[in-house]
Amino acid sequence: MRIRQLMIEARGCEADLDDAEALQALLRAAAKAVGATEHAASTARFVPHGITAILILAESHMLITTWPEHRLALIDVLLCNDAMEPRDAWAVMKAALRPADELLQEVVRTVG
Amino acid sequence: MRIRQLMIEARGCEADLDDAEALQALLRAAAKAVGATEHAASTARFVPHGITAILILAESHMLITTWPEHRLALIDVLLCNDAMEPRDAWAVMKAALRPADELLQEVVRTVG
Repeated sequence: MRIRQLMIEARGCEADLDDAEALQALLRAAAKAVGATEHAASTARFVPHGITAILILAESHMLITTWPEHRLALIDVLLCNDAMEPRDAWAVMKAALRPADELLQEVVRTVG
Repeated sequence: MRIRQLMIEARGCEADLDDAEALQALLRAAAKAVGATEHAASTARFVPHGITAILILAESHMLITTWPEHRLALIDVLLCNDAMEPRDAWAVMKAALRPADELLQEVVRTVG
């Protein structure tokens, strides 16, 4: 199975990028939107600011790392189910993060 | 800062890909080899088999997802410190996983 890993740099985000709970909730909302199943969640808070939140899914993972001082978020979406569209997950995140600018990159990965 | 995200498909692995503790220890060894700092670790075990292990680092993350039935491991290494070489982390993992075949892909990401 060939799947696409979606990687995003979201710049000029209007959202609060230092709110770990909100970012974790956002990953959950994005996973729900594509029908993915959560297995575990983890969050790390950096000093003085910045969050990494990850959701481990039955279908692999979604992750967001933020630099609030740059209003920057890096996002990774890997869904090992070719019926799920990673850009649909990004659409949910984008609506909440409200970036001024975004860079999307995709890499094809082969599983199984 | 421009950094490279390293993504690997490791096929025909000789290691036990269903040993969550060993895989988490392997991520820690790889992080140590490049001088990265651990912030949080998370592991998910899938039924009937398969592991996703992640290490959240001060420098972003390392992650491994396995399909023991295919002797396949997917690995992601993102180190937001251009003095750290992601291929050095992979060298540590490769020595333990002992894949018959590997596919390495890199994507440039821009931070800050």
